[in-house]
Amino acid sequence: MTTLLDDLRALVGAAHVLVDGSGDALAGYERDWRKRYRGRSLCVVLPGTADEVAAVVRRCARADGVSIVPQGGNTGLVGGGVPDESGRQVVLSTRRLRSVRRVDADNQTITVEAGLALQEVQAAAAAAGLLFPLSLASEGSCTIGGNLATNAGGTQVLRFGNARELCLGLEVVTAQGELWSSLHGLRKDNTGYDLRDLFVGSEGTLGIITAVTMRLFPRPRAGVTAWASCSTLADAVALLRRLRAAFDAELVGCEAMNAASLSLVERHFETLRAPLPLADAAGAPLWSVLTELASPHDESALRERAEAALAASLAAGEAVDVAVAASQAQARALWQLREAIPLAQGVEGLNIKHDIGVPLSSLADFVAAADAALEAVVPGARHITFGHLGDGNLHYNLQAPAGACRL
Amino acid sequence: MTTLLDDLRALVGAAHVLVDGSGDALAGYERDWRKRYRGRSLCVVLPGTADEVAAVVRRCARADGVSIVPQGGNTGLVGGGVPDESGRQVVLSTRRLRSVRRVDADNQTITVEAGLALQEVQAAAAAAGLLFPLSLASEGSCTIGGNLATNAGGTQVLRFGNARELCLGLEVVTAQGELWSSLHGLRKDNTGYDLRDLFVGSEGTLGIITAVTMRLFPRPRAGVTAWASCSTLADAVALLRRLRAAFDAELVGCEAMNAASLSLVERHFETLRAPLPLADAAGAPLWSVLTELASPHDESALRERAEAALAASLAAGEAVDVAVAASQAQARALWQLREAIPLAQGVEGLNIKHDIGVPLSSLADFVAAADAALEAVVPGARHITFGHLGDGNLHYNLQAPAGACRL
Repeated sequence: MTTLLDDLRALVGAAHVLVDGSGDALAGYERDWRKRYRGRSLCVVLPGTADEVAAVVRRCARADGVSIVPQGGNTGLVGGGVPDESGRQVVLSTRRLRSVRRVDADNQTITVEAGLALQEVQAAAAAAGLLFPLSLASEGSCTIGGNLATNAGGTQVLRFGNARELCLGLEVVTAQGELWSSLHGLRKDNTGYDLRDLFVGSEGTLGIITAVTMRLFPRPRAGVTAWASCSTLADAVALLRRLRAAFDAELVGCEAMNAASLSLVERHFETLRAPLPLADAAGAPLWSVLTELASPHDESALRERAEAALAASLAAGEAVDVAVAASQAQARALWQLREAIPLAQGVEGLNIKHDIGVPLSSLADFVAAADAALEAVVPGARHITFGHLGDGNLHYNLQAPAGACRL
Repeated sequence: MTTLLDDLRALVGAAHVLVDGSGDALAGYERDWRKRYRGRSLCVVLPGTADEVAAVVRRCARADGVSIVPQGGNTGLVGGGVPDESGRQVVLSTRRLRSVRRVDADNQTITVEAGLALQEVQAAAAAAGLLFPLSLASEGSCTIGGNLATNAGGTQVLRFGNARELCLGLEVVTAQGELWSSLHGLRKDNTGYDLRDLFVGSEGTLGIITAVTMRLFPRPRAGVTAWASCSTLADAVALLRRLRAAFDAELVGCEAMNAASLSLVERHFETLRAPLPLADAAGAPLWSVLTELASPHDESALRERAEAALAASLAAGEAVDVAVAASQAQARALWQLREAIPLAQGVEGLNIKHDIGVPLSSLADFVAAADAALEAVVPGARHITFGHLGDGNLHYNLQAPAGACRL
């Protein structure tokens, strides 16, 4: 009787079954990006096709007490992609599923395999003159399959929605080892129950995504990036409301950051400096709002309208100071401030991450109440609060009190 | 032992349980809008609250061989909302579930009960200065619960998506008579499996939708409606591609109609006349494309850009003739032409309706192949082909050959 490992090697090729002794390679699959979770796998299997994924699932199902942990780019922050310590879990990595199967310009869709990095999907769309708008900090290494398995969000959800809303179809290997596909590229598909959305966000528990069909969009011709300081989070919400009414779908991103977040960035990255003061004249901390506009029309008109809307927000007292990036380099620098916050948190030391959704109308009240409640429990803990204001999706993170030792 | 009818009367009030002899009222629930399906119900129950719906479901579950047919505005075209002829089905109408529970302007959401007519949802959003963009011909009588149960589309799917994409949460009475709710208004909700989308489009088979939370949008400040004639459906697809690139999200609707569709309208409605000829100089039939643009900016700029894009489409040969509505009245008249097609089909006589989704890149080939195949089977049958070009969602209808008798 052959062993499970022998059979897996026969199915995907011996080079694509990693076990203890395969060298350093294994560690990258058994440990998460933050190095907070580390497990021990029975093996890591890297199938090259969806059929091989199905065969691996069927073979593992016949093995006693063996479970499968699907893994994409292994950029998750909550340990969902790494094995436990039992040594009885097979890590099934999608990294070899890397074909761009089709870019359909008329239908504005792209069909790719699950192991393609998000940035590679963006690049394939761009090569066809189109935009794939999903964008997040780990886009260089996270995979599109993982983005859908976790229903990832990112910085352009305000306009384009989460990964779920961008997805038109999936190819999935079910827990029974069957291949289920809905890669038809239809905008409207009312045939039977919506199984696609059941797999999206199910984190590999219902099946393993092997390929996806995603929506594409026209590439914008003009972009404007702006920064505003607000006295309160409620003022930031009022500013957002004004921008939505003024720009509708041209408002593609709106990020809020509290002063503590940006102070951390300035402390740890010498080249990154906020364009406006982080506190008002009286020393009270300010919220910063980073806004991204994109339009199919010309840039000068967009810039003019952005300046008019920001002037109106100053007059209304929603913002106390504003700045508009004068070049693409300045725009990139503003986004770097936002993107460097998690890195600065890591350098600073012990922290606890939360990714929360709150209705925008309750956001300011929530943060005030949660801050007060936490201060009562952990005096001196620093609130590193930032994220996607437009979606009510904040990273409500806690940093250990200054000077506290690492756990 | 009390009977089922007695118990239902006790649960919802005797006035809200209709049976044979309740007068004409019953017929409106037992027969569909097209009068093609007619059943006989055990009774029609009209609960006034979600709790009453749950109680009715639980009581019916205890009755032997009794099933429930949920019904909204009863505007469906496929018989899904009417009972069969067994006399053992309870029609559960949502027409008394009519509260607007909340309009949240900051969160841009509206929470309403399932029995509200689509037009009433639009009006409640408008009263708060916001837009609820779902729009279809039956909006005066179809209900929002039915829109979600069938994942309705409509004329603005191109920009805003189907009913599914507009929905953020549901309140549902499950088949077990339990109340399940996700009316939180969150843009991002990754808690557990996505049950919401399983209920959306399930046509009442998994549960009865009693309330919904839907996305709202800023009201556009400017609109432009245009009409174009194209020699082929492939040219119409090329025109759409140009318009998408030029206007992105400002392109909110794009409908295509073949010449036969509009000829029927002109034959049966004296006041409705297409703004451009339906055939070219050689007598070849033309496709008509109705385009709706909406912008948060000023109307003169939008009109200018629309005229420039249409001029470019003429130069490229995608369109052979174009017209831009000069007033809101003209714009409405153009949309009336589109909306009158199903009515004209009804007056003309026997017809078969299809509601199909095809990837845009295959649409022209599909219609050519299907037309040829049908002509071989039913010589002389008229192809009344029209619908939502932007979504690849066509009403591919057949009208009996001219002069054929009614079934």
